Amino acid sequence: MTDTLNRGARIGILGGGQLGRMLSVAAARLGFVTHIYEPGANPPAGHVAHAVTTASYEDEAALTAFAQSVDVITYEFENIPTQALDLLEAHRPIHPGREALRISQDRLTEKHFLRDLGLQTAPFADITDLAGLQAAIAEIGTPAILKTRRFGYDGKGQARLKTPADAEVALADMAGAPAILEGFVDFSHEVSIIAARGLDGQVACFDPGENVHEAGILRTTTVPARLTSAQKTDAVLLTANILNRLDYVGVMGVELFVTPQGLIVNEIAPRVHNSGHWTQNGCTVDQFEQHIRAVAGWPLGDGQRYADVVMENLIGDDMDRVPALAQERDVALHLYGKAEVKPGRKMGHVNRITRAT
Amino acid sequence: MTDTLNRGARIGILGGGQLGRMLSVAAARLGFVTHIYEPGANPPAGHVAHAVTTASYEDEAALTAFAQSVDVITYEFENIPTQALDLLEAHRPIHPGREALRISQDRLTEKHFLRDLGLQTAPFADITDLAGLQAAIAEIGTPAILKTRRFGYDGKGQARLKTPADAEVALADMAGAPAILEGFVDFSHEVSIIAARGLDGQVACFDPGENVHEAGILRTTTVPARLTSAQKTDAVLLTANILNRLDYVGVMGVELFVTPQGLIVNEIAPRVHNSGHWTQNGCTVDQFEQHIRAVAGWPLGDGQRYADVVMENLIGDDMDRVPALAQERDVALHLYGKAEVKPGRKMGHVNRITRAT
Repeated sequence: MTDTLNRGARIGILGGGQLGRMLSVAAARLGFVTHIYEPGANPPAGHVAHAVTTASYEDEAALTAFAQSVDVITYEFENIPTQALDLLEAHRPIHPGREALRISQDRLTEKHFLRDLGLQTAPFADITDLAGLQAAIAEIGTPAILKTRRFGYDGKGQARLKTPADAEVALADMAGAPAILEGFVDFSHEVSIIAARGLDGQVACFDPGENVHEAGILRTTTVPARLTSAQKTDAVLLTANILNRLDYVGVMGVELFVTPQGLIVNEIAPRVHNSGHWTQNGCTVDQFEQHIRAVAGWPLGDGQRYADVVMENLIGDDMDRVPALAQERDVALHLYGKAEVKPGRKMGHVNRITRAT
Repeated sequence: MTDTLNRGARIGILGGGQLGRMLSVAAARLGFVTHIYEPGANPPAGHVAHAVTTASYEDEAALTAFAQSVDVITYEFENIPTQALDLLEAHRPIHPGREALRISQDRLTEKHFLRDLGLQTAPFADITDLAGLQAAIAEIGTPAILKTRRFGYDGKGQARLKTPADAEVALADMAGAPAILEGFVDFSHEVSIIAARGLDGQVACFDPGENVHEAGILRTTTVPARLTSAQKTDAVLLTANILNRLDYVGVMGVELFVTPQGLIVNEIAPRVHNSGHWTQNGCTVDQFEQHIRAVAGWPLGDGQRYADVVMENLIGDDMDRVPALAQERDVALHLYGKAEVKPGRKMGHVNRITRAT
């Protein structure tokens, strides 16, 4: 355990995308100074950071210099190579910790972890070859979805199976990577809960948001979500269960399917999460500041929500709508400063305040 | 008139203090990239900017390179040397414009400008020598306050006269600088109105805030201010009058004394203003984003307020209160990342949300 960070302490952030960008702004707001580590040139987070290192996760000299320049390290994405983490951790503490990364980096490990906690997940099977896939389909049924165990995000590394006949093509899509078959869950809607755990073990949850995806990418998150009081309590308890078991420090996003049989955990993300962006315009302490508070050993915000919000991602050509959105009252724009618009690329988001509460 | 800035355009900001810092974050949120120009090393704004130039306002090569690296120039303070402005403006547009700077850089010029608009000010006199000061005291009376015409802020360059006998000492305090004597105004309280005017002439006002000063430095701003509906209307109209007369583009702060004889204009600041910090936690578009929107030729936010807020500056050793403040619900912290605490130095502020509206 590190101590509480002092004023002006330096926080290293692995990853320079929009999450790193918004973390950097939150860190500055608390008086901290940030250093971004990102392999890609001109990262969005670099526009609002004190220092940027442009280097790969294999560059040991750059990693070492980065670690030594900061007081604590955090990250915007979970797929950081293990060797880089080993090297960084030799110099400075990393929050959230290695156990959370180990589990969330591998869908199979994650599913076992969740089951061991007594939580419901989709039916799943470890897939190594076609025979195994066919056997798993026989047990789990179709429709189902084949996913690489590692390095998937925003629908990448996934293949849908409508019928058992899709097995061969789906497996080929995995390109030889270890995979997991996940069975169909008959859910009414998806919610996610953004929660945080402090260095002292304090847990705070934001209100669950209701998510709508399109083409595997989050489209909108709406608060409040359609949940009964009992479901909300379940969501909070199971999330706290996950955080405590991992001795977690930081913000985590937990995606849940709402079904008549209860809440089914879809996946966990050991970081700030797209479905928590609404907190920027719905809470005094948003998910980004909450994460920095946890990592810095500060007291957490309590998660209190002061408005109903609909967060909508601006993806690709949605950027053409910005001039019109800028004229809408009660719409807060959050653009990421990405130079190039690409289909499927998250370019920004808006938080539309639908009601003060 | 410049056109609307395109996505990813570069905004140059003169001055790297806390106002430049919060302007930089707001610019990034709209997808712009910022470049800070600041003579002092390690400026607070540099922690959240894409580029920083550390150079004096006499460095013509640095000023030229800075201007050429950006699409438009704005500033966080009004006391920029005229020669630097001449040079910068030869390359890029500066908003707010030169006329606003010319007037607000000189207290005497400002008073004449306000009077010419038909607005009330404190009684005043141009002071060049002791005989003139004594004559002015005979007319205006004491208590009164002697101020340098240029380069004053946060109570600096000011001397109070309790009796006519204080004239000589007060004048010596001016150290030979041109000065203005301002008479006593019997006001019940001070309010300020933060307003913006867009490139298209659109004007938007935030709700007036009520200010309390200590030792010449703003201590708190409270919204809503104690004002009658008629006074609020007056405040909006006179401010729009000022903005329109100057063909102003950007945010302006107007400080007003509330008296039984109506609103008396204390001073105007052609920039975002400390008494507008509450907007960060009271409005969807805060004063910093509002200023960037104006400078960028975007539509303005309408200034709608969604909460009652008390803004409190954290000055000097107030920083010792940060751990306790971080535990308070409904308190939003905004720290400036200044390394050294000094008496009277603005280190940060908090916005305490007292009621959702």
